[in-house]
Amino acid sequence: MIYLDNAATSWPKPESVAKAVYDCIRESGGNPGRSGHKMSLEAGRIVLDCRDAAAGLFGIDDPMRVIFTSNTTDGLNMAIKGILQPGGHAVTSSMEHNSVARPLKALEPQGIETTFVEADRLGRIDPEDIERAIRPNTSLIVLTLASNVTGTIQPFRGVGAIAKRHGIPFLLDAAQGAGHISIDVKADNIDLMAFPGHKGLLGPQGTGGLYVGDGITLNTIKEGGTGSFSDLITQPDILPDRFESGTLNTPGLAGLAAGIGYIKSVGIENIRGHEIDACGRIIGGLGEIGRVKLYGPADPEAHAGAIAFNVDGMDSTEVSYLLDSEYDIEVRAGLHCAGLAHKTIGTFEQGAVRVSAGPFTTEEEIGVFLDAVKKIAR
Amino acid sequence: MIYLDNAATSWPKPESVAKAVYDCIRESGGNPGRSGHKMSLEAGRIVLDCRDAAAGLFGIDDPMRVIFTSNTTDGLNMAIKGILQPGGHAVTSSMEHNSVARPLKALEPQGIETTFVEADRLGRIDPEDIERAIRPNTSLIVLTLASNVTGTIQPFRGVGAIAKRHGIPFLLDAAQGAGHISIDVKADNIDLMAFPGHKGLLGPQGTGGLYVGDGITLNTIKEGGTGSFSDLITQPDILPDRFESGTLNTPGLAGLAAGIGYIKSVGIENIRGHEIDACGRIIGGLGEIGRVKLYGPADPEAHAGAIAFNVDGMDSTEVSYLLDSEYDIEVRAGLHCAGLAHKTIGTFEQGAVRVSAGPFTTEEEIGVFLDAVKKIAR
Repeated sequence: MIYLDNAATSWPKPESVAKAVYDCIRESGGNPGRSGHKMSLEAGRIVLDCRDAAAGLFGIDDPMRVIFTSNTTDGLNMAIKGILQPGGHAVTSSMEHNSVARPLKALEPQGIETTFVEADRLGRIDPEDIERAIRPNTSLIVLTLASNVTGTIQPFRGVGAIAKRHGIPFLLDAAQGAGHISIDVKADNIDLMAFPGHKGLLGPQGTGGLYVGDGITLNTIKEGGTGSFSDLITQPDILPDRFESGTLNTPGLAGLAAGIGYIKSVGIENIRGHEIDACGRIIGGLGEIGRVKLYGPADPEAHAGAIAFNVDGMDSTEVSYLLDSEYDIEVRAGLHCAGLAHKTIGTFEQGAVRVSAGPFTTEEEIGVFLDAVKKIAR
Repeated sequence: MIYLDNAATSWPKPESVAKAVYDCIRESGGNPGRSGHKMSLEAGRIVLDCRDAAAGLFGIDDPMRVIFTSNTTDGLNMAIKGILQPGGHAVTSSMEHNSVARPLKALEPQGIETTFVEADRLGRIDPEDIERAIRPNTSLIVLTLASNVTGTIQPFRGVGAIAKRHGIPFLLDAAQGAGHISIDVKADNIDLMAFPGHKGLLGPQGTGGLYVGDGITLNTIKEGGTGSFSDLITQPDILPDRFESGTLNTPGLAGLAAGIGYIKSVGIENIRGHEIDACGRIIGGLGEIGRVKLYGPADPEAHAGAIAFNVDGMDSTEVSYLLDSEYDIEVRAGLHCAGLAHKTIGTFEQGAVRVSAGPFTTEEEIGVFLDAVKKIAR
């Protein structure tokens, strides 16, 4: 079986990931931050190690500003709803995932408006369009690091600089990119960043995080027991407790720390190099097949893993079905939870086939995939 | 090491739990509901199996009404904030965990009031007090199944009947009880129920659920990609999608299904019998030690695992520290994320030591624990 759906969730994981989760459940099963005994402290150490690992990867000085969430969507909701107030305004793009678009739309009845800046046909937004969309009441700019449909990397550093110049908090959706595209929250002027644990960071599903920058104050959307300040009936202010109510996914975080550890050991620049190489082969190979239409930029360096295409006259789900059933190749078809993006690139009716290599994808696997598409397109 | 902190998180887990998680990460690593290929369908099957298992345990006819959450707190927030509207009123008790008390307090600025019905000194509320607190604008009754401090089982079936008679939705916080106390959502008139995966259900941390009864409509507190209706920029209405945005904790749910499977194979009535037996030994043994003060009911059948006590003149954290460091026995001390409950039982200053046996706790372990307390109290 050839797995080319790493933009949905990465697979396989480094062997250390499953093992760390297994060992944590069996040997370190206390509740972190809830009791003072050895098992609880050991669980707390596992969580702290993961916080340190994530902070280190993203240039975050204070690991306590890394909030653990159940997935990227959880963190995006916390950030979007925590910062926008009635009468406020947000700027975002037409390439966003529903995890950004739907929370923003859900705020409309509260008098919170959003401008969806249009990307070009390759899925790329122009930072100047973001700047032009800023209003006096703009209190948030949200942008995806890279489209989950076309893989198009957005000029997020340029947008970060604009946000900083205007004194508007900048939230980066790093669902596609964290773990393979270098991110430095300070240099890149990122105030808030939601990231998944189970995609580029190679951790297990059920993990993710939200970085909350210094000087950013968020209202909570969830409150509860934090293992701290139990005497208070109001949510404590300190980080990360303020945003981590209820028991954390300790075994998942043990696995996430192992995933990040793997990335650090290989080097993120090498993982990125491998990705550019894979994207180049896929784009080049698909481009040579008649009846195949590619979306997104032609330059593999402008891609964060995902590449979208269609075979002329065939529904995207038909192509992915044939790849799976006839060739044992796993890709994703359809709208990918991002209807807006498909409107932008012109595939709202047909959807698109998305192929996404991962750090363990081989040249040979890509060759088999290209041959299969060739036969299907014939 | 003797682990007696099962009310915080159960340990050890059945061996099948860690194995199911490990196998899922290694072999079934697709994203459930996100793609149409074999790996994604296999992940979807794992999630569905867990939904079926949870529904079966709680007498839920339609497994799609089981929403998976990251923990109990997540589900409680979804239920409380999803149902209460400005101008509304909630009835709850003074024995609630901060996971209920803090979200309710956080709603006050929206003009949502809460009546905290006082329990007696044993931590037990009177259903008639709940009924007396109902107002014309009461739109939610929330109650913990059992106190996480004293273990006192609340008369939740009686409260369910009252809620039904008044046509008010009844939310049960089953953090302490799910997996060892029998629950039947229909017979017990439960409209909403939040439960943890990692306590009595013996699954891994990072799992939990919210049952949403037929006829209950909740606003969402989170929106995002659901793998369904990707063309819609608004959250879909169908369950469970409406409340499951973002990637689920598939490996965690594989483990939770294994945990529930273990409970079904042993029989919940046998697990409960073992618990009553353990509570009886602990209450009886502690009662014979001079200088030990017990809280909560004397009848072990009135307890759901947890038992709270103090040694006269000693801070609760000192006792738990000695148990851990001198005797290798793990219990929890302090306020247990439930300041209100400690005010009720009179331990807000001193806190309390909480000892909670689990299904794998042996008579011998309880004997060692009682001897240790005896020595500490001397």
